[in-house]
Amino acid sequence: MFNPSDHPHRRYNPLQGDWVLVSPHRAKRPWQGQQEAVDRSARPSHDPSCYLCPGNTRVNGEKNPDYTGTYVFENDFAALMPDTPEAAEGADPLFQTMSARGTSRVICFSPDHAKSLPQLSLPALEGVVDTWCAQAAELGAKYRWVQVFENKGAVMGCSNPHPHGQIWATSYVPNLPAAEDRQQKAYHAEQGRRLLLDVAEREIAAAERVVVQTEHWVAIVPYWAAWPFETLVLPRFAVRRLEELQPAQRADLAVLLKRLTTRYDNLFQTSFPYSMGWHGAPYGIPDSEAEGWQLHAHFYPPLLRSASVRKFMVGFEMLAEAQRDLTPEQAAERLRAQSEVHYLDTES
Amino acid sequence: MFNPSDHPHRRYNPLQGDWVLVSPHRAKRPWQGQQEAVDRSARPSHDPSCYLCPGNTRVNGEKNPDYTGTYVFENDFAALMPDTPEAAEGADPLFQTMSARGTSRVICFSPDHAKSLPQLSLPALEGVVDTWCAQAAELGAKYRWVQVFENKGAVMGCSNPHPHGQIWATSYVPNLPAAEDRQQKAYHAEQGRRLLLDVAEREIAAAERVVVQTEHWVAIVPYWAAWPFETLVLPRFAVRRLEELQPAQRADLAVLLKRLTTRYDNLFQTSFPYSMGWHGAPYGIPDSEAEGWQLHAHFYPPLLRSASVRKFMVGFEMLAEAQRDLTPEQAAERLRAQSEVHYLDTES
Ligand SMILES: O=P(O)(O)O[C@H]1O[C@H](CO)[C@@H](O)[C@H](O)[C@H]1O
Ligand SMILES: O=P(O)(O)O[C@H]1O[C@H](CO)[C@@H](O)[C@H](O)[C@H]1O
Repeated sequence: MFNPSDHPHRRYNPLQGDWVLVSPHRAKRPWQGQQEAVDRSARPSHDPSCYLCPGNTRVNGEKNPDYTGTYVFENDFAALMPDTPEAAEGADPLFQTMSARGTSRVICFSPDHAKSLPQLSLPALEGVVDTWCAQAAELGAKYRWVQVFENKGAVMGCSNPHPHGQIWATSYVPNLPAAEDRQQKAYHAEQGRRLLLDVAEREIAAAERVVVQTEHWVAIVPYWAAWPFETLVLPRFAVRRLEELQPAQRADLAVLLKRLTTRYDNLFQTSFPYSMGWHGAPYGIPDSEAEGWQLHAHFYPPLLRSASVRKFMVGFEMLAEAQRDLTPEQAAERLRAQSEVHYLDTES
Repeated sequence: MFNPSDHPHRRYNPLQGDWVLVSPHRAKRPWQGQQEAVDRSARPSHDPSCYLCPGNTRVNGEKNPDYTGTYVFENDFAALMPDTPEAAEGADPLFQTMSARGTSRVICFSPDHAKSLPQLSLPALEGVVDTWCAQAAELGAKYRWVQVFENKGAVMGCSNPHPHGQIWATSYVPNLPAAEDRQQKAYHAEQGRRLLLDVAEREIAAAERVVVQTEHWVAIVPYWAAWPFETLVLPRFAVRRLEELQPAQRADLAVLLKRLTTRYDNLFQTSFPYSMGWHGAPYGIPDSEAEGWQLHAHFYPPLLRSASVRKFMVGFEMLAEAQRDLTPEQAAERLRAQSEVHYLDTES
């Protein structure tokens, strides 16, 4: 008889409208491939050579202020520019170009060079949440999409260990949020409810994929997770965009983020790398177009077995579809088994 | 005025039905992030500790034969199994599972542990092409999709430098080929021609994105390439699947592969990592359903600026859409500027 913890199967991702291949028995294979470098060096609280630390000078000659909370500035090598001229519309279906306007900002989470998210105090984390919300509101007034995200760790292409994230805003809705838009709209049209509110309720009831639950939020390993320890952060209330979050919901989000990222760090006793980011309703559309939308955050961490062995999304994954080596239920269980006291926190 | 070599823009990928963000000015930014390890050690032709070399014993106790050409065997840690039981169909739109049947094989390209594709002789490369074709025919008789691919280099998750590829066959058509199926079908229904035959013709005429052209084949940097030096290998004749290739077309494909992969290695004077693979029409469908399909191969190499600096598809890319830092035209020009004599080939 079919057993999802033994037999290869596909699971449907209703948020993206595609599938993932789950090969539960494959975690047993030995790994002889690339080992990631693990950075265990203690960092100073201020690094004179870091271009993100307060008071230091960036590559373009500008000097960072002596900031004490978060600090946002325009990316010195932005992938997007606010004043791109319009491209002529081509009639050729094989060679289509669209001009892209936008902006790209860096957000320092803390003046302390040494502290990543789980090591920040709750008030400091609330400051990060407030900054995300303020940036979303400001850029949403000008652009159709605001992508708030963090690349953490060298393995995720992060070139500076100073705790920071990014915000890229675009004059168009990119591929992946466009797919989420279609899927949430269709579900709402059919069921009259929000897809991700239904998911949150059902997952809390089922419990087996829940990692952290607070008064207003829940973090789950989604049923359709592709990355080994991927999680989805869901509000337990209806909300479309970051800036609509109320003070109590923001404070509670800080709690959830601290608990979730602490568990991540504890899993392999390492500063857990990931890309994470927020998806909310696109801007500049009537409310009726956004009815199915529910704000959420994705965490995509690459590690698979240890601090130095990652999952490679290559070959079959790049050419056919995502594949995972343990079940989402197994991943959730391992994350739940972690302490919520950070492994570097020696005060305890 | 809008200029695609200066201004950020999006390009449409008609084969997948999605977009890529091109930020041409961004290649100028300094890189302070992770450096990939570059393996410059000379490898022996036979490595007694390699589980793929002829005569050696694999982890499951089986002994490889003393093969002289290619050698195919079932993966000892297969992601797919031929006898997965059927999963019960669930009615719940949020939690859908589908049982997956399939198989996963390893194909050694050569008994010589030291030689990657560009270093093989043309007859040896023809042997690789013939093996791909024979495997596609054999597995296509049982499964709906046959994914022939190669992960090359530690940075692409390849755990053994012995020249080898893989073949995963599945009882279903995975996400990405399913999208290509939809797109090619729609184009054929509208235009009465094959999308990729039109692309090949137009690219040969335009010349600026062509990298290598032979009698029967052409390799281009597609207009919508996401990876910095991504290429698309296209037949210049109508053909749906690998096994339909005629002897002269196979021999000529060996020529194209040798020339293309030699240029790749020469670009950064390194054994160029990539994931590559073949897409042909799915199996078990009537010919009328496959009319728009054209066989092709994708090469997805990660390197961006040097043997040790790669492009990271993270953050914005994982959460919004693929982004590239140089134009496809610039990439094609750099690949065209390379010699077709391999940089390690000292006989010249
Ligand atoms: O070659 P291996 O070791 O079987 O595995 C490699 O290729 C597979 C197919 O692309 C991926 O799923 C793995 O993550 C990667 O490590
Ligand atoms: O943080 P950086 O250096 O700007 O850049 C990093 O994040 C970007 C957005 O996710 C990616 O496009 C780059 O490939 C990555 O290196």
